[in-house]
Amino acid sequence: MNIKKGVVGKVYHCPIKGEFEFISNGLITIDQQGKICDVLHPSDPNYSKTLNFLKEKDSLQELTEQQFLLPGMVDLHIHAPQWPQAGKGLDLPLNEWLDHYTFPLEHKFSDLSFAEQYYPHLVKTYLANGTTTATYFATIDTSSSLYLAETCIKYGQRALVGKVSMDDKEMCPNYYVEESAEHSIQEAERFITSFSQLANNNNLVEPIITPRFIPTCSLEALKGLGDLAKKYQCAVQTHASESDWARDFSQEKYNKTDIEIYNEAGLLGERTILAHSIFLTDSDIDTIKQKGSGIAHCPRSNIYFANAALPLREYLDQDIQLGLGSDIAGGPFPSLFMACSDAVLHSRARECGTNASLPAEIRGQKNSRVSLLEAYWMATTGGGQLLKLPVGQFKKGYCFDALVIDDEDSNLLICPDLDSPQDILEKIITHTTRNNIRQVWVDGNQVK
Amino acid sequence: MNIKKGVVGKVYHCPIKGEFEFISNGLITIDQQGKICDVLHPSDPNYSKTLNFLKEKDSLQELTEQQFLLPGMVDLHIHAPQWPQAGKGLDLPLNEWLDHYTFPLEHKFSDLSFAEQYYPHLVKTYLANGTTTATYFATIDTSSSLYLAETCIKYGQRALVGKVSMDDKEMCPNYYVEESAEHSIQEAERFITSFSQLANNNNLVEPIITPRFIPTCSLEALKGLGDLAKKYQCAVQTHASESDWARDFSQEKYNKTDIEIYNEAGLLGERTILAHSIFLTDSDIDTIKQKGSGIAHCPRSNIYFANAALPLREYLDQDIQLGLGSDIAGGPFPSLFMACSDAVLHSRARECGTNASLPAEIRGQKNSRVSLLEAYWMATTGGGQLLKLPVGQFKKGYCFDALVIDDEDSNLLICPDLDSPQDILEKIITHTTRNNIRQVWVDGNQVK
Repeated sequence: MNIKKGVVGKVYHCPIKGEFEFISNGLITIDQQGKICDVLHPSDPNYSKTLNFLKEKDSLQELTEQQFLLPGMVDLHIHAPQWPQAGKGLDLPLNEWLDHYTFPLEHKFSDLSFAEQYYPHLVKTYLANGTTTATYFATIDTSSSLYLAETCIKYGQRALVGKVSMDDKEMCPNYYVEESAEHSIQEAERFITSFSQLANNNNLVEPIITPRFIPTCSLEALKGLGDLAKKYQCAVQTHASESDWARDFSQEKYNKTDIEIYNEAGLLGERTILAHSIFLTDSDIDTIKQKGSGIAHCPRSNIYFANAALPLREYLDQDIQLGLGSDIAGGPFPSLFMACSDAVLHSRARECGTNASLPAEIRGQKNSRVSLLEAYWMATTGGGQLLKLPVGQFKKGYCFDALVIDDEDSNLLICPDLDSPQDILEKIITHTTRNNIRQVWVDGNQVK
Repeated sequence: MNIKKGVVGKVYHCPIKGEFEFISNGLITIDQQGKICDVLHPSDPNYSKTLNFLKEKDSLQELTEQQFLLPGMVDLHIHAPQWPQAGKGLDLPLNEWLDHYTFPLEHKFSDLSFAEQYYPHLVKTYLANGTTTATYFATIDTSSSLYLAETCIKYGQRALVGKVSMDDKEMCPNYYVEESAEHSIQEAERFITSFSQLANNNNLVEPIITPRFIPTCSLEALKGLGDLAKKYQCAVQTHASESDWARDFSQEKYNKTDIEIYNEAGLLGERTILAHSIFLTDSDIDTIKQKGSGIAHCPRSNIYFANAALPLREYLDQDIQLGLGSDIAGGPFPSLFMACSDAVLHSRARECGTNASLPAEIRGQKNSRVSLLEAYWMATTGGGQLLKLPVGQFKKGYCFDALVIDDEDSNLLICPDLDSPQDILEKIITHTTRNNIRQVWVDGNQVK
């Protein structure tokens, strides 16, 4: 056997959208590389033999009655340098929030010693909150963006790290803009190729091409970045149609949608993450599906800053690739558990509408509610599928990225006499905070 | 001096709606009864003398650089028996949620041993989350409702505890209804008068008259409860116009609004808490203001279950009495800190609207955003004023109900070089969970 170790206990995961699987004494075996050898049910013929084998070589972790094993969370949208501002000024309009807080703050990360103050805290915080795969926007500064990647390796977090590209001098602040499209593309390429020099990476961290959004990028830069995506087979992330303003900007300047522009630049591929994507046309949706790209839904920042609600129900039903993002600092909470609750809330605000002075029939959009299990699927399996990474569920050959959760000393109250397995999973998703998360593994390594 | 002890450190509170006060070395002195003798600034003439006096008699707690002193939270709406279901089935429609989960669960509390399993956990959980004043709906069972009051005394939580009144046989489940209006009124009176026998109360806990809502109560019962409110000078709590269905029910059955019905029954007074109150008429609002009653805004459950958003901005501007409720289990989180963030989110969903297919101009209701400081004011000062209790702010003669918060090992990241005093307060409100709350005092007694 190639098995290195095993974990046995109450196992939950959601391989199928809207459903869940619970194994009351599930045995997960893990190989030297931290990949899952097998997920065994007590009824499997190999179960007892494997359990005894692991016990004999003292390589079995037995969870307690109060503990649960869940897959690690897959966060598709995080602005790493905005971590020091998370929770500040969230009642401001977007433009004031960006000008007063965000751009000046991102700029400070060009100073590596400033980055050293905050990136480690960020990565440790996300790990502590159960995020085993993180997708980061860094800043336009290549060195400190590489430092973020090194930080992820140091603390053991799987990550896609993007140096932000933004070269439009009219739209970017003069202190925070790349000097030309050419320079922007060169730096993006230097960033990508630098990953081969990162020590101890073991495929834990990879670069992701990151044009900020249409208003801050020239078409030349977008095209160059699209070429790099093809050349290096890189993932891509950006913002698409986040607000009325962003959508109108593309229409007015180019007479095109964001999706049309990204597509023409060669930026839509099977590993492209489109954050937000609130205002898509039917044709945009067809393009996204045809290219196999996916959407990062960020429910809380959506409500704060996007001017309208993502049509999540319809997108789930159309089998568009979908995952969740915490969107620090547009959303203040570094937790995808919170994002699951917020996704349900978001869908309910949309279903009912908000204007109490309108009749109920025209107030909201009927049948748009989303279930907590659908949201949790997005935060795990959906995110993994979108990234084309073997994470988010417990499956042979997948990475052992996992969390041990218990209810001790916390707001999570599990009532064995009252709660069904589904109730328990819903309570775990709703109430888990970092203090319920006792252990975190990434690639079989315990990182918390 | 009648001073028993003092606390010195960084003090925040919000006596004025939308504003905050920060005292960097504030000294709060407390008397034998747990009331605040004084709130001293370093510039006050008595400051040094008092500080030295307390140091000498070893009665001064000095907060660390990382700690902050804030008033305890005042929660205006909690369904105590629904605590075991918090976080379950929140994607169900209200009627299914009530029928499958809520009513059968509330009924179980008639068994005192069942109540003993859950009420202590609830009270300790709310205290741990910083709620020093809690307003509880219990169940229709008088004994276990009194047990909830005893539990609050035991753990030291200030509380208004209500035995629920519901006597309408057509609308209530047959296993969970009072046998007649007369019996309902008798039991409410027995509940109220039993408080004089509660041991060790010291005014910490008081009864509150609690008709569930119009559909479950006969007019005769409502009138009898109104008489009791007058006779015993009791506070009153109920639900008002929570949903389209509830509003329509009153119109169809009585051709009146909820507020008109409560008013005619004598239930609107200066200490009446109207939970939700989404669909009020202008005349309802005039009545509420004239009677000095107040509204408990429950932002998260509002979005889950109320069909539309409370016009919070307008109510704040009209100086209606307002506070916040966590509304377990319609909202799953036993934390008013979370309710503050949710109140901002709620107001933003309302401001922008949700339907992405509508033009921006008609999608939302302009200028309805609420600031985090306004929400926090509601959660502290506003709630205290609504209850006519001397709590929610640090002020001479007020109860010393207070929290010590720090940022150790948590999602709260305070950056002294980047954050203004207002930024720090906003981060504290946004990120505080039970694990940031190191100490909780109620009436000067440390209860966590």
